[in-house]
Amino acid sequence: MGEFGLIARLRAATTSEGSGLALGIGDDAAVIDVPEDRQLVVSTDTLNEGVHFLPGADPAGLGHKVLAVSLSDLAAMGADPRWALLNLSLPSEDDGWLDAFAGGFRAMAGAAGVVLAGGDTTRGPLSLTATALGLVPDGRALTRSGARAGDLVAVSGTLGDAALALRTLACGATPSEFLHERLDRPTPRTALGRRLAGNATACIDLSDGLAADLEHILTASGRATGSTLGARIELAWLPATRELAGLAPGERWALQTGGGDDYELCFTLDPAEADGLEGMAGDVGVPLTVIGQVTAGAGVEWIGPDGPVPEPAAGYEHFSGGARP
Amino acid sequence: MGEFGLIARLRAATTSEGSGLALGIGDDAAVIDVPEDRQLVVSTDTLNEGVHFLPGADPAGLGHKVLAVSLSDLAAMGADPRWALLNLSLPSEDDGWLDAFAGGFRAMAGAAGVVLAGGDTTRGPLSLTATALGLVPDGRALTRSGARAGDLVAVSGTLGDAALALRTLACGATPSEFLHERLDRPTPRTALGRRLAGNATACIDLSDGLAADLEHILTASGRATGSTLGARIELAWLPATRELAGLAPGERWALQTGGGDDYELCFTLDPAEADGLEGMAGDVGVPLTVIGQVTAGAGVEWIGPDGPVPEPAAGYEHFSGGARP
Repeated sequence: MGEFGLIARLRAATTSEGSGLALGIGDDAAVIDVPEDRQLVVSTDTLNEGVHFLPGADPAGLGHKVLAVSLSDLAAMGADPRWALLNLSLPSEDDGWLDAFAGGFRAMAGAAGVVLAGGDTTRGPLSLTATALGLVPDGRALTRSGARAGDLVAVSGTLGDAALALRTLACGATPSEFLHERLDRPTPRTALGRRLAGNATACIDLSDGLAADLEHILTASGRATGSTLGARIELAWLPATRELAGLAPGERWALQTGGGDDYELCFTLDPAEADGLEGMAGDVGVPLTVIGQVTAGAGVEWIGPDGPVPEPAAGYEHFSGGARP
Repeated sequence: MGEFGLIARLRAATTSEGSGLALGIGDDAAVIDVPEDRQLVVSTDTLNEGVHFLPGADPAGLGHKVLAVSLSDLAAMGADPRWALLNLSLPSEDDGWLDAFAGGFRAMAGAAGVVLAGGDTTRGPLSLTATALGLVPDGRALTRSGARAGDLVAVSGTLGDAALALRTLACGATPSEFLHERLDRPTPRTALGRRLAGNATACIDLSDGLAADLEHILTASGRATGSTLGARIELAWLPATRELAGLAPGERWALQTGGGDDYELCFTLDPAEADGLEGMAGDVGVPLTVIGQVTAGAGVEWIGPDGPVPEPAAGYEHFSGGARP
């Protein structure tokens, strides 16, 4: 640990006082105090150049994003993020790149209240792995497996922004600054996740796209009760920013249901809880939109203005053959 | 998670019953129960092709080793290993490779009583990251920083085996099966680490080589007390297997002090504890050898049969320019 001086750069920027970190960077391992009424929640994600991001991607954005995507997983569990590990493989030592990367990582960690507890830096093709560790009150973790037929399906924020930015970049064009930020610097919905714990019946973060991720909820929840679950989603209800709203409907739906990387939360909740959504959205500072309902049938029915639309996500092509986390 | 079917292969082989794993693979994150009288100990290591292992390396050995090196860090902290995360970047899907890798990983996890709690598999140049999580009784973690002048310095097992195997391979020759195993399948000294917690004053695992790793103990321990610490090490006392004992002394010392990858433990202890070493070695099933003493001076004095030997490790050349963890 500590090659390229990176860990020192990052360490200097984080304070471990009161963080529950009994022993941090500089020994064989980190030692962490977990309060007795809390469970530990852990998630890890790898981002590789050419697979998850384009060569030459802004290092500050990468520093932000590699941590943000793991924090997004913790948010989907309703967990409070506390610590992170960073594994970084770099082809060469490049001070400018490292400073920018460290700046992005530090800003995201600071905003989330996360302390860097350890990691490993090695030489190799550019590859970034962040592991996020957090806490959740005993037995209160949000899972993918609690959805029931009749539950409402809702999402946070807007969908398809990152996919449109990625498509624009892949065509050699320049996306708007807003869209670019949505792709490069996703916001983990931590406060929302914490608030949903105890209210939502199931939750997932939208990394693979709505169609794939909603399917994960339906499969896990169906398996948990030995039943088959589907959903009926109104395409017109999918929350969209101005940039998306201007596209032809088929194109927009493809980006919104097939594109990933938005890192919004998709969750299900008892219809009786619907009235509380607006207040919750105000409390956590992010719009929440009901987009449909869980059904007892199999599969997802996508409803357009003229009736069912078969596989709207099929119109979306991922920019590379890379395996998604 | 779950690309290439790898995680499913590994998941099937591990049971999570009674493991403290409240929620394992298949959700956004793992949920772990940490008993209230325990602290969590976490370490992570990345191994890259061409840096930490040669192209074409045996995948079963890699599956073993990527986990073993993180478990070795936990051993050096006196921790009981419990869970692991695995991040794997693979250039292509290769069933034979994956089966062999999974077999090696599974065997090491099974032997250590470790349950796979999560991970990420992605496409990319071959890169392996394992994160090991374990438990230590509150306040009992072994650190690098408790050594005092007068303490004895001791090591487990034998030193230089992995370095000799690596040098032999790098020359295009074939090391003995024993040496090859020492390089490919290091044994984390878990039982020893647990036993040392409370007896040793400081501990580190030998991944970078005795000279570098002992320096880490002396630096951390000196910093902890605001003093300068050195050591006096008897080169003739360094434990060696038959293969090493036959080499010219200078060559042998270079491998034993400069080569890493043995993953033995180096620890310091109060001389009053020396009498207990033999019994401890018998209990944990690994030889323990006193190799010298911590001194109040700066730097390490290496003593050969004819007096001080300046920098015996300087004769060792690492096989690549790769940054070591």
